Amino acid sequence: MESKAHSGVFHLLPLGLRVQNKLETLIDKYMQSIGASKLSLSAITTEALWRESGRYSKNSELLRINDRRESGFLLSPTHEEEITALVASLVHSYKDLPVRLYQVGRKYRDERRPRQGLLRAKEFMMKDLYTFDHSPQNALKTYEAVRQAYNNIFDELKLPYLVADADSGNMGGKLSHEYHFVSPKGEDNVWSCDSCEYVANEELVEKKTASPKKVQSPQHTARYTFRGISVDRKTEIQVHLPNPSSAFEKDEHLPWSRISEFANLHAIKNALPDDIELDTGMEASTLAWCLSDSDKVHRPIIHLFDRALHPSHSSPDLTITRPGDACPRCSTGTLSVQKAIEVGHTFHLGTRYSTPLNALVAVPENPTKEPMQMGCHGIGVSRIIGAVASLLADEKGLNWPRVIAPYEAVILTSPQTGEEEAVQVYDALCSGTRSDGGQGAVDGKGEVVDLVLDDRPIKSLGWKLRDADLIGYPVVVVLGRAWKERREVEVQCRRLGVKQDVGLGELKSVVLGMLEQL
Amino acid sequence: MESKAHSGVFHLLPLGLRVQNKLETLIDKYMQSIGASKLSLSAITTEALWRESGRYSKNSELLRINDRRESGFLLSPTHEEEITALVASLVHSYKDLPVRLYQVGRKYRDERRPRQGLLRAKEFMMKDLYTFDHSPQNALKTYEAVRQAYNNIFDELKLPYLVADADSGNMGGKLSHEYHFVSPKGEDNVWSCDSCEYVANEELVEKKTASPKKVQSPQHTARYTFRGISVDRKTEIQVHLPNPSSAFEKDEHLPWSRISEFANLHAIKNALPDDIELDTGMEASTLAWCLSDSDKVHRPIIHLFDRALHPSHSSPDLTITRPGDACPRCSTGTLSVQKAIEVGHTFHLGTRYSTPLNALVAVPENPTKEPMQMGCHGIGVSRIIGAVASLLADEKGLNWPRVIAPYEAVILTSPQTGEEEAVQVYDALCSGTRSDGGQGAVDGKGEVVDLVLDDRPIKSLGWKLRDADLIGYPVVVVLGRAWKERREVEVQCRRLGVKQDVGLGELKSVVLGMLEQL
Repeated sequence: MESKAHSGVFHLLPLGLRVQNKLETLIDKYMQSIGASKLSLSAITTEALWRESGRYSKNSELLRINDRRESGFLLSPTHEEEITALVASLVHSYKDLPVRLYQVGRKYRDERRPRQGLLRAKEFMMKDLYTFDHSPQNALKTYEAVRQAYNNIFDELKLPYLVADADSGNMGGKLSHEYHFVSPKGEDNVWSCDSCEYVANEELVEKKTASPKKVQSPQHTARYTFRGISVDRKTEIQVHLPNPSSAFEKDEHLPWSRISEFANLHAIKNALPDDIELDTGMEASTLAWCLSDSDKVHRPIIHLFDRALHPSHSSPDLTITRPGDACPRCSTGTLSVQKAIEVGHTFHLGTRYSTPLNALVAVPENPTKEPMQMGCHGIGVSRIIGAVASLLADEKGLNWPRVIAPYEAVILTSPQTGEEEAVQVYDALCSGTRSDGGQGAVDGKGEVVDLVLDDRPIKSLGWKLRDADLIGYPVVVVLGRAWKERREVEVQCRRLGVKQDVGLGELKSVVLGMLEQL
Repeated sequence: MESKAHSGVFHLLPLGLRVQNKLETLIDKYMQSIGASKLSLSAITTEALWRESGRYSKNSELLRINDRRESGFLLSPTHEEEITALVASLVHSYKDLPVRLYQVGRKYRDERRPRQGLLRAKEFMMKDLYTFDHSPQNALKTYEAVRQAYNNIFDELKLPYLVADADSGNMGGKLSHEYHFVSPKGEDNVWSCDSCEYVANEELVEKKTASPKKVQSPQHTARYTFRGISVDRKTEIQVHLPNPSSAFEKDEHLPWSRISEFANLHAIKNALPDDIELDTGMEASTLAWCLSDSDKVHRPIIHLFDRALHPSHSSPDLTITRPGDACPRCSTGTLSVQKAIEVGHTFHLGTRYSTPLNALVAVPENPTKEPMQMGCHGIGVSRIIGAVASLLADEKGLNWPRVIAPYEAVILTSPQTGEEEAVQVYDALCSGTRSDGGQGAVDGKGEVVDLVLDDRPIKSLGWKLRDADLIGYPVVVVLGRAWKERREVEVQCRRLGVKQDVGLGELKSVVLGMLEQL
């Protein structure tokens, strides 16, 4: 389906491209349902524009292009800056809003460790939708419309998914949801309550707030302290967590390598200033060597305190959540965690980009223009393909949901099958109206199966069957022994565990009936 | 339609994307007709692979990517290397050939002077088809099939185009054709004979070979000499041409700035070694300064002699072709030149890439594997859009050929038009069967017009008409005065110079009749 060309770089072969195009068509359908127009932004953007928005940073995963003038071109990982600049140039009044624009295209990221095929690559396909409204109320309506469209898209894949509520719940807080497939290959941890609807990812999972009386005053709490370092080796980071195992007021130093047993690394990263990138994967000996020269290089130190140590300040919650911890939302539930692959994200941006990039509109009853209320909403197209492939694969090969399968069904002939016989079966599945006069409801709409015929004369039927299983067509139609004996085809569906001999008269309704479940 | 984001970098707005998608659909149709499969190669390639093929050069227009490991990634301007490596890994026997693979995707080029919008940009869309055969005879059949497909594609655009024969005509020579739109905005010069079928571009236009007796022996021919320099300033290039104006054996030095009056710069570039890039655009004073220090830096000199000076060697023909020169093919015609935009190219590659990249297949009756016979065939998708836009535009706006128009027709309502009335007109054009019972052949196939309705209530009919003219819909259907008075719509077509009032009963056949000519 895809072929690895270089580290983190993939070519899509013809069948893989068909899967991608079908997924794009599915996305188009629901983007159109919310009135979003499709466009195509360049993959190239500039350092200058990213400096304006404040997102440019030497430490980011941006890929830079060297052109003959060294003019600071970048390959876009996302397009908030470009779309904001574009819409600012075209839209000037609230009367032209809402505007909803999306694209399906390639994104680029200087992935530190490209891995897991399409899940983490340098180049990947994304759907990105950007929404523009003139008031927070309207932006909220847009946000809910997008959420509904996303639910519709993921429902059609007919695979279980989680929607992690990433809303902080506070006034002025971020409004954000993540869409996940549960998978042992996932790199995200999604927490959910066994009693209420609470679902959150590791970065945002909350803990039940301890009642004030339980919090000791900071000077009396024993601490664990961890010493780490930034990626650029210029800043030391010291993380201080409560040490519940110490009955005394004793502080302990623990090696950095043990930090993930106690601390939430996402929370630590979020608590750091934007220009400091924490190195989480450094080997113990290298880290020790780096820190040993701290005195010589006079490296500044950032201290991060868990809120249990500084409860009166707005200190972050840095300690890890553990399975079995109490749910932060309900009174009875406990949390458990699952590995998951993030495949979609909705985000209310507010004026994060419209203010710095001056994307203003005239608004009713106000003489001054105001920044537009924006949202950005992604779906990882390559991610979904990679995730679905790994989720549904079995020992025989891939398995595709009907809606994104390269073809809904394949017809396999043996080297002895005549061309006319193959065409006869093909027509039975492809004709808009039934050849038997048409009882049965499934194809009342003149539905046609998206079909491919494997009639390569030099391959045996056994070889073709193995090939079809590898590719993962939802339904396989075989002209085998039953065809020779009594003109019946064998219809196979691995996901449903079905193999049955069917006459041509009922073939189409049998195949469509299977496809409805896939 | 498109929006310039940065120098040589464009975003496609929704209507522009529709034009591009329609062109892609047209190309898909004829690629499928020759059994080509569509895939999608990564935009990222590597320096290492380009070194293997021998195409890597510091002087090229390659854009380099800086990633965190500086691993030598490039943005592909074309994909010969990647597709050859891919096919070499998948195909091992002539039994699996022919293979024809194509894509429609973004290409990248470090354009020295981005200009003319979509015609010369850093990022552009191309269709590139690569063909693989096991023998030169089969490759030739493939080549002819591709040529026919290209003719079909350009025929459907219904715009005049030239096919420049770039075949040297010699055994073992290159087999290549270029597709051009004649346009004053073009940067190519296409030469054609006023008598026979000969068409060739500037790079390849031949001159009538002088009969041997007319060629003077080299030591007696007076010369013009021009001194130029390479882009990297490391090599001097001296060009020697015959000096017909000198009756004596006198050699003259002329300034480099006058070289294009006498010499064919393409021929000079082709005559230079691959690693020497001639600087053609240098200012006279800078060039003089550079050359003045030649003695000091001991710069090597390459001498190029026109074949009139060295007739016995295989010296190239370096002198310029002039309008009125005799046709090289027929005995009566003379050549004339037109400015043109190159929009397509077919090329028989032979084993240019399969040999260095080891793309071998088992062949019949031969114990050793042989390199595949390849072809590469491009269509400039962004180029066609830019060229068509400039070719058909008039003072009121753009004009699109039916097959790539964003919509085939637009319906314009006035603020007073009721919603039901608009739907009535829309249905008259969109219904699969005729509302009047169906005389007339044009929509016998149940043809449906690809239609958009402009019913924005806040815009006047005049504003909408100007907007529709700017966008360039082939046909405009107006619910204006005639609609109010007698329920007739006004059908406008700027390209055909038609404005006529039509009743709903005959509307569809009138519109389809116009579209057939566009």
